[in-house]
Amino acid sequence: MNSDVFNAVGEFVTPTYLSQAMASRNQMSHCFQQLLSQRRIPDDGWETNYIEMFIREVSLWDSNNFASRSAVGEREGRCLSKMVRDRHWGLIHGIGRSGDVNAEQPKAAGSSFLLSLTRTLVYDALKNIFGIVNVPRDIVVLPIATGMSIMMGMTAVSQMHGDAKRRNVIWSRIDQKSCIKAMTSDPNLQVHVVEQKRQDGVLMTDMEEIQSLIHSLGGPDHIHSIVLTTSTFAPRSPDNVPAVSKICKDLAIPLIVNNAYGLQCSKCCHLISDALRVGRVDLVVQSMDKNFLVPVGGSVLFGPLAETVNKIYPGRASMSPILDLLITLLEVGKNGFKKLLADRRANFEYLKSKLEEILPGQILHNPKNQISLAISLPKATEKLGSELFLRNVSGARVFVANDESVKRMDKNITVFKNFGCHTTVPIVPVYLNAACAIGTTKAEIDLFVTRLKDRIDKTLS
Amino acid sequence: MNSDVFNAVGEFVTPTYLSQAMASRNQMSHCFQQLLSQRRIPDDGWETNYIEMFIREVSLWDSNNFASRSAVGEREGRCLSKMVRDRHWGLIHGIGRSGDVNAEQPKAAGSSFLLSLTRTLVYDALKNIFGIVNVPRDIVVLPIATGMSIMMGMTAVSQMHGDAKRRNVIWSRIDQKSCIKAMTSDPNLQVHVVEQKRQDGVLMTDMEEIQSLIHSLGGPDHIHSIVLTTSTFAPRSPDNVPAVSKICKDLAIPLIVNNAYGLQCSKCCHLISDALRVGRVDLVVQSMDKNFLVPVGGSVLFGPLAETVNKIYPGRASMSPILDLLITLLEVGKNGFKKLLADRRANFEYLKSKLEEILPGQILHNPKNQISLAISLPKATEKLGSELFLRNVSGARVFVANDESVKRMDKNITVFKNFGCHTTVPIVPVYLNAACAIGTTKAEIDLFVTRLKDRIDKTLS
Amino acid sequence: MNSDVFNAVGEFVTPTYLSQAMASRNQMSHCFQQLLSQRRIPDDGWETNYIEMFIREVSLWDSNNFASRSAVGEREGRCLSKMVRDRHWGLIHGIGRSGDVNAEQPKAAGSSFLLSLTRTLVYDALKNIFGIVNVPRDIVVLPIATGMSIMMGMTAVSQMHGDAKRRNVIWSRIDQKSCIKAMTSDPNLQVHVVEQKRQDGVLMTDMEEIQSLIHSLGGPDHIHSIVLTTSTFAPRSPDNVPAVSKICKDLAIPLIVNNAYGLQCSKCCHLISDALRVGRVDLVVQSMDKNFLVPVGGSVLFGPLAETVNKIYPGRASMSPILDLLITLLEVGKNGFKKLLADRRANFEYLKSKLEEILPGQILHNPKNQISLAISLPKATEKLGSELFLRNVSGARVFVANDESVKRMDKNITVFKNFGCHTTVPIVPVYLNAACAIGTTKAEIDLFVTRLKDRIDKTLS
Amino acid sequence: MNSDVFNAVGEFVTPTYLSQAMASRNQMSHCFQQLLSQRRIPDDGWETNYIEMFIREVSLWDSNNFASRSAVGEREGRCLSKMVRDRHWGLIHGIGRSGDVNAEQPKAAGSSFLLSLTRTLVYDALKNIFGIVNVPRDIVVLPIATGMSIMMGMTAVSQMHGDAKRRNVIWSRIDQKSCIKAMTSDPNLQVHVVEQKRQDGVLMTDMEEIQSLIHSLGGPDHIHSIVLTTSTFAPRSPDNVPAVSKICKDLAIPLIVNNAYGLQCSKCCHLISDALRVGRVDLVVQSMDKNFLVPVGGSVLFGPLAETVNKIYPGRASMSPILDLLITLLEVGKNGFKKLLADRRANFEYLKSKLEEILPGQILHNPKNQISLAISLPKATEKLGSELFLRNVSGARVFVANDESVKRMDKNITVFKNFGCHTTVPIVPVYLNAACAIGTTKAEIDLFVTRLKDRIDKTLS
Repeated sequence: MNSDVFNAVGEFVTPTYLSQAMASRNQMSHCFQQLLSQRRIPDDGWETNYIEMFIREVSLWDSNNFASRSAVGEREGRCLSKMVRDRHWGLIHGIGRSGDVNAEQPKAAGSSFLLSLTRTLVYDALKNIFGIVNVPRDIVVLPIATGMSIMMGMTAVSQMHGDAKRRNVIWSRIDQKSCIKAMTSDPNLQVHVVEQKRQDGVLMTDMEEIQSLIHSLGGPDHIHSIVLTTSTFAPRSPDNVPAVSKICKDLAIPLIVNNAYGLQCSKCCHLISDALRVGRVDLVVQSMDKNFLVPVGGSVLFGPLAETVNKIYPGRASMSPILDLLITLLEVGKNGFKKLLADRRANFEYLKSKLEEILPGQILHNPKNQISLAISLPKATEKLGSELFLRNVSGARVFVANDESVKRMDKNITVFKNFGCHTTVPIVPVYLNAACAIGTTKAEIDLFVTRLKDRIDKTLS
Repeated sequence: MNSDVFNAVGEFVTPTYLSQAMASRNQMSHCFQQLLSQRRIPDDGWETNYIEMFIREVSLWDSNNFASRSAVGEREGRCLSKMVRDRHWGLIHGIGRSGDVNAEQPKAAGSSFLLSLTRTLVYDALKNIFGIVNVPRDIVVLPIATGMSIMMGMTAVSQMHGDAKRRNVIWSRIDQKSCIKAMTSDPNLQVHVVEQKRQDGVLMTDMEEIQSLIHSLGGPDHIHSIVLTTSTFAPRSPDNVPAVSKICKDLAIPLIVNNAYGLQCSKCCHLISDALRVGRVDLVVQSMDKNFLVPVGGSVLFGPLAETVNKIYPGRASMSPILDLLITLLEVGKNGFKKLLADRRANFEYLKSKLEEILPGQILHNPKNQISLAISLPKATEKLGSELFLRNVSGARVFVANDESVKRMDKNITVFKNFGCHTTVPIVPVYLNAACAIGTTKAEIDLFVTRLKDRIDKTLS
Repeated sequence: MNSDVFNAVGEFVTPTYLSQAMASRNQMSHCFQQLLSQRRIPDDGWETNYIEMFIREVSLWDSNNFASRSAVGEREGRCLSKMVRDRHWGLIHGIGRSGDVNAEQPKAAGSSFLLSLTRTLVYDALKNIFGIVNVPRDIVVLPIATGMSIMMGMTAVSQMHGDAKRRNVIWSRIDQKSCIKAMTSDPNLQVHVVEQKRQDGVLMTDMEEIQSLIHSLGGPDHIHSIVLTTSTFAPRSPDNVPAVSKICKDLAIPLIVNNAYGLQCSKCCHLISDALRVGRVDLVVQSMDKNFLVPVGGSVLFGPLAETVNKIYPGRASMSPILDLLITLLEVGKNGFKKLLADRRANFEYLKSKLEEILPGQILHNPKNQISLAISLPKATEKLGSELFLRNVSGARVFVANDESVKRMDKNITVFKNFGCHTTVPIVPVYLNAACAIGTTKAEIDLFVTRLKDRIDKTLS
Repeated sequence: MNSDVFNAVGEFVTPTYLSQAMASRNQMSHCFQQLLSQRRIPDDGWETNYIEMFIREVSLWDSNNFASRSAVGEREGRCLSKMVRDRHWGLIHGIGRSGDVNAEQPKAAGSSFLLSLTRTLVYDALKNIFGIVNVPRDIVVLPIATGMSIMMGMTAVSQMHGDAKRRNVIWSRIDQKSCIKAMTSDPNLQVHVVEQKRQDGVLMTDMEEIQSLIHSLGGPDHIHSIVLTTSTFAPRSPDNVPAVSKICKDLAIPLIVNNAYGLQCSKCCHLISDALRVGRVDLVVQSMDKNFLVPVGGSVLFGPLAETVNKIYPGRASMSPILDLLITLLEVGKNGFKKLLADRRANFEYLKSKLEEILPGQILHNPKNQISLAISLPKATEKLGSELFLRNVSGARVFVANDESVKRMDKNITVFKNFGCHTTVPIVPVYLNAACAIGTTKAEIDLFVTRLKDRIDKTLS
């Protein structure tokens, strides 16, 4: 409702009553104005009515919502179902155009604006909420999850190399299938697994092995890329990204970092931040859902290769995960996210102390991993994971060392032993992983500890 | 979003793409502007997104939606449930204030505006859709249904008379309980039932009896009011409102007209219109739900007493039925309503012709009743109503004359014989009523006729 | 989805994964089962998805939502606007039938069920949340607000008296227009105002005057009813309902109690409870919105006359306020409401202590009023109310004694002096009222105190 | 609500009224049952309330919606924003697991079920609505759009070849960037553009050139794949898929078909169907949004390679586009889609005839292309496209031949001349494309023709 319209309201209501109404409208406009001029996530989240108004108005800017339009192309943002249209506020056109999935779409100025705004706010989040102070400004947000983004990143590296025939990927082992699939999808690449090194009872990046591999594979010119991971299951530690990034810088080797759920952890963010400062980092990929608590389906990328991934992405893509992220940023606000991060840190300590209480001495020591805990268990408890799952405990996984287990995920990757344990020689024969991720509540931790104790007591008695 | 904000968008999107977006926004603002300046229901209904935007913005004007407000009263429009708040778009304050239920509420400029707007649009509807060309401008809309509004109307008449001790109500019989309850709630009133007169096979207002009653009750000074009904079940006809209104004018007797679902029928509207022109009409009451197809709960009043009813109404009241009506007027539009009225007329003829086909000669003739049909039936079919109801036919009712049935509804009303038949001497011993009201579809009529024929065949075979 | 359907799902998903899904469904069914069998508000509120599922399923039971139905009556629950239908979940038929507004409607089994359920849960709330332990079981909920319900109650009393010509209403003064209008709407009644008695600096019910009035008006046979109020603005106290109820019992005089926003205050509830035990109470009326924090539009009635009000109510009525109440009860839960009541008590003390800090000695002492405070002010601050309103403080009202002001609200009520102060002789010449009602937050109190101090400082400096 | 709960309702409502309510519930359960047992899109679309109920119930099966759950993993389907959660009905977990993006997710039985159901219904749609009678049963639906799916298909072919070093892609030219990007993303591939052959004034697949290229590139063992397109802009025709598929079968060359918006056109579907019967087709990719009118973001894949694409997809993905598709299929129903297809055919003829009227003789003849029309234009009208866009005509594009224009999209693809015209030697120097896609209305066509004529008249006068 523009000012002219508002003035006409004076014919219906005593003007004196309208002055405060006007102030209330201006309050909302002020919020909008501030968002756009400051380009920052609001400190306090907006009430949902403001968010609704904002999105609804912006959706009017997409051509499919123009009055009296005539669409004679083959993709015109039509939507058959009112239920579907409503849940997307009429934002039907998706994002991007053939040239670039983060580019403006002439038919959809509103969607394009929301995408651009989201990228800006995510930059603010990375820098001012998660603390990657030197994050590059050109953030890319994609409606594909982490694994798919890493796969695109691998392709981007290949394009960068062009004919250069750099085929060898060096990868610090983490037993997580989607990253492996992302690296091995291109049959032209050969993935070399670098085992974790055990040091002070902790699994850590084996720097010597990485350097030795570069050499044995024929030198930097034969290395396609190095792939590291920050957010990991204990007893594995986050990879030593700064150290590797320096090697990459020195030897001109591309570095891809899987920071899947690492934004929520200041340790992981510091590793990224340090690496950006001292070395070479081509691409950092993080999950939207795991860090921002939105539905699965998006990822956030930065680093010089991010823009290349953008350009490789063929055609348009779903707006939905980006919209989820934008709404969440506006609704939760900066203070809301900061509180969630502080709560997570406190709850992680709480989880650790509660587990120490019921299982003294069994928590594997790893000060570098501030998200996941590993708890050594007796052999008899190997079914604990599924037992807990049946009792509505999800995310707790039991790993049992099995030296016989040898696995090859794909033709173009070296073999694994003890898959699941992130190492060929597990630190303990049986252990349980539990994490305290962003959003985990104290009540959940209490439930978990109670049910865990109950199962262990039953199993061992 | 005001213009300043929109301009800031240019930092995020190529300005050339925004020109059309701007045009699209202006299109919406133009709709709003037109509504307020023309004070008329839009010819074509608005798309729901516009309606949402309109209501959401207006709801910001209510004090309970002000940012940083402090409320230290006992009624401040708080709403505990987000689900409830959302379904009312934060319009929590209801309508009215102690002085007048249609008055502005200082704490709720938005709600007050919507009420005022609704009254204006209902005036337009009555005049320009339903054709009561001389309807008085001051329409009252109340969140109470027809019966309750008539009861308030009776009280308004009593207040007008004050000490004058006019206690006798003259009422042209229609066997519908809520009107009777509305008239008899005040034990000081005495309701005199005027039987329908049979003329040309049709039940009609007995003008002579009305006049004779006025006389026998001691003359106009002893008459509290006359109550008539326009929308009726066949074979009863709409009351002769113009003729009675002339008597009322001549003798200074208040006239209340129950036009419950009469707006949808041009015959009923013409009766009202004629009466307004030639005689005295104090109050006309019509149902919101039956004429505008909104949820049960509201009524529309006009006539000199409407404002008095307003003033009698103690305190505030629900906004919900008014909001339903406003949304419906905006969404359906003038053309939509006109089409519904035309469809109704056509479907009424269709219903009649289909019934004539399967039950030739059994449709009771009554050219004055253009909504309801009465079909003469053999005695054996008296259970037809409930049988049809079990077959998902609702609204079809069977009446069986029973001269033994004598009923007194309340102490202060004369007795009834053959209650349900609107007359002591039914035209036929057994008959079925079926109506073709606004919104009835051809498909429903076909279903009804098929199921009716099936039941009659089964019963009689 | 019934069990057969769920079983068919096993064709699509590995059955083992479905066992937990089944458990989750059963959890919801268990909630529903418990609600219906225990007939109590759930201790912890339901998540909104459960409430949605519950209402949606029940709405299928209303005939307007039957598949392949044919409706040939004049009121068939049609709804033109999808937006309107959605916001009411297809519950279009309203409540009641001609005989009784709280009765079952054959065309709307679902709506009827929800109404019946709401009445049952409100009984639970009155007894087990608000502490009226001896509340009669037959609670009536009506989609009309407090004032209108009191007016209906007056009519119910009139019907009870019938011809008995008891015309005098005795009313303990409280300067609130809608109650006055409710009593004076019937011009046959004469309302006699009993002034508050001043005792220990507090305004209290003048028992002697009530008794003397009964006598002077010709004895109990000439008294239509006595009307009292529990929830009041300081320095007025809640009326002494138990004492008056004993008189009413002894002398067979009907007693109506306006307990508008008294449920939230244990003092008021105890007064009602005591009166129910020791005396005669014909009707107690309370506001839905003020006690349950739902949109304006409903009231809760109990006492022997409640059922009569039901029966007097002519025709059907809006379902909307009842649905709001039901949703709120299910969403907030018993513990949620108990917490709100405890918070209110604590916040009331907090408000008092903060005001004492900034305006020492100016809070008028009244231990009987636990909702509203009166603060004595210098003359110069008489514009404080509107100044605060402009600063988004609502509900704070300033009263200035003016002995010249004499007011007669209606012909059939005695005159008022100093209307607004609840007494002809105000305790202090200028004072401000502020309340701490259910839902008021500490943050609001802080805002109020800050803004109040700011205005007073500015005015007096 | 299971049967036990329903029975408890009998305590609240007269059981006789509940029998019909029960029937209404059963009607809904019957719909669900039929859907699951018949595994077919309902003939008539469901009303949205049924769809809501269905999704809401199923969402309870996902572990994030379990009551009293404890989640101690790093991805647990948490959702911060209620607004976001509501728009996804709590379906937060996305689809897939590391092994397979169309696989069941143990933590999300509900989402997994909806995915499986959608795949089944899309099979039904392809076979029984769009008429690809011999479509393979294992449909894959992916939350990535067409271009991205083709890119994944190229990778799947590469994996199939493994070390075989088949690097040459043969591609029948169509000037559409996202397909080109999809083929050229892998720098190891070399794309060879086969120009369209001009025959009878129509651009057609140059079969001879394809065969000759296979030979000149060293024979089938050097061919990575052939890529064809069915849905094209006039004057290009759909590729001769059957003929090429026979070659592919004979020579064991993988064939990928871009059927982007071809489902809506029976000509395209017949080409696919014939090819499936007579030759080799490895993968057919179609757009969700363009064929099913849902928001941009998904695609439908079939053919033997579809399952491989599934397996290559690393990790989980967004549920949102799949949910949109499912809702649309249920809401529109089979008959709704069939009507849309029939309307499209009729409207295409209408568009052609209206254009013939205003621009006689200028429509380029191409009976093979039943979606897009090319209209020869005078040189002066080259700005027509943007002029129309400014007049809210979207999708109409003007192409101007420019023999000087030589373009290389990427290093690994041969050059283009006259990019945009699909051929180095355009049939006419200037032409306009307009399409009549599914969902285009007659009113839009009328608007387009009027505005087009107006612009041409103005330009040429």
